[in-house]
Amino acid sequence: MTTLSPAIDRKTRESFARQALMTTFGATILDLAPGACTLAAPILPLARQQHGVGHAGLTFALGDTAAGYAALTLMPEEAEVMTVEMKINLLAPAAGDRLVAAGRVIRAGRRISAVTAEVFAETGGSRDLIAILQGTMVPVTARART
Amino acid sequence: MTTLSPAIDRKTRESFARQALMTTFGATILDLAPGACTLAAPILPLARQQHGVGHAGLTFALGDTAAGYAALTLMPEEAEVMTVEMKINLLAPAAGDRLVAAGRVIRAGRRISAVTAEVFAETGGSRDLIAILQGTMVPVTARART
Amino acid sequence: MTTLSPAIDRKTRESFARQALMTTFGATILDLAPGACTLAAPILPLARQQHGVGHAGLTFALGDTAAGYAALTLMPEEAEVMTVEMKINLLAPAAGDRLVAAGRVIRAGRRISAVTAEVFAETGGSRDLIAILQGTMVPVTARART
Amino acid sequence: MTTLSPAIDRKTRESFARQALMTTFGATILDLAPGACTLAAPILPLARQQHGVGHAGLTFALGDTAAGYAALTLMPEEAEVMTVEMKINLLAPAAGDRLVAAGRVIRAGRRISAVTAEVFAETGGSRDLIAILQGTMVPVTARART
Repeated sequence: MTTLSPAIDRKTRESFARQALMTTFGATILDLAPGACTLAAPILPLARQQHGVGHAGLTFALGDTAAGYAALTLMPEEAEVMTVEMKINLLAPAAGDRLVAAGRVIRAGRRISAVTAEVFAETGGSRDLIAILQGTMVPVTARART
Repeated sequence: MTTLSPAIDRKTRESFARQALMTTFGATILDLAPGACTLAAPILPLARQQHGVGHAGLTFALGDTAAGYAALTLMPEEAEVMTVEMKINLLAPAAGDRLVAAGRVIRAGRRISAVTAEVFAETGGSRDLIAILQGTMVPVTARART
Repeated sequence: MTTLSPAIDRKTRESFARQALMTTFGATILDLAPGACTLAAPILPLARQQHGVGHAGLTFALGDTAAGYAALTLMPEEAEVMTVEMKINLLAPAAGDRLVAAGRVIRAGRRISAVTAEVFAETGGSRDLIAILQGTMVPVTARART
Repeated sequence: MTTLSPAIDRKTRESFARQALMTTFGATILDLAPGACTLAAPILPLARQQHGVGHAGLTFALGDTAAGYAALTLMPEEAEVMTVEMKINLLAPAAGDRLVAAGRVIRAGRRISAVTAEVFAETGGSRDLIAILQGTMVPVTARART
């Protein structure tokens, strides 16, 4: 299996570190590999909905970000990544010790990449799938936007 | 045009007030009517991505919440609302003075409601459409889950 | 309001005429304008599901095609259009005299266009919304693919 | 691994046999198991788009149907299945000897099931992933609709 080039690994981690929302959520990168990115975050009180479990916006943000950085690992070194669209199906409440979001590239194109993510809630030793995401990422360069 | 019953209006606002993530984002209800809910939120530094504009997770959370409470206004008084699935297309960066998310019920069913939302970025007097959402909400009662 | 250039109008209608599946479904173009395309089709016996109403594949095909040609009207003359992704929410059974699919461009970009479509079932003088679609189209030139 | 009860197997195959659109497309069931259904279909001339490859409506119809029957295998014997919503990302043109659509249940709920499908184009001995789908199915009984 191939590993990430040090330059891409560094670029991706630096980009993630600049995402204030990920800092707000206490999210960290668990794993980074070509075409794959796994994040983890606690379910902080500030990110909950009216019943005390994680808000769909938290689950979405983690899944979308994991999928986006998975895509970024396969893009040219000068590129940044942008979400074109993303769909989430919520399967179970976001309750437990922490959420783990595993993003994966399904097809990396020059112009467009198709990605998916799974989000799990971990409690003690067990792990439940609570959401699946499917979407589209594009590379963007410094000044370019769609 | 019909207006919201006081009981549903109160229930919806109380539910929104308990969403910690909405408080974190500084979101407020601008308007609430049968089948419609409009929210507004600043683009706080804590909710930004790596380029200093609002994170897709912020835009999603506002659109999803506006759509969810739009659906709740048409549900029985004892019901709560839950997102089954939601799809977002991001059209432009979340930059400006504030975001406004307008959720709307397309079809309210007994078991399932189809909803949409539009999210705008407002700057000075102008307003740009930055995202559209389309999804499914279900009513849930106190203990019931899917 | 602007009207379509004769060249774009002709290109779009010729492309539609070459879509064998649209011929199979008996679909025709009702209206074509910049950023908008409306199709109609009967609910032929060959396009039904197990209960005798139109198959979700019929509703999807009409909505997707209407949205795609709506996008094509705003693309350069040498471009063809391709669906990147499309999401459909089915609201009611596809039953009636005919289906009408109205596609519309929400945002036309150089690289990516966001589109929506509504599909109606018409019976006598009445019209029911049976599906909504939201998706992404890209321009492609003769040999290029994603 | 569990196998399908004869009653569910028979009900599912009989329902598929009544889907006129599947007959039109020449589709057949390759495999049926608890929570999984695989279909195959040629890319008939009648199901093509303007460039001579399969129309997105064909790919969608096969993926949606495979996912729907996958869900039906886990539903009560008296239930039928209905698509609430479905999202498709198209990854490559539908060209080759035949399409194979593999549907799978991700989470079977009493009221709602989350499903996915992959659609492949097979040519000679090779197989390309051309589309992924993610959606929601619900059980319906004889007279009930959403």
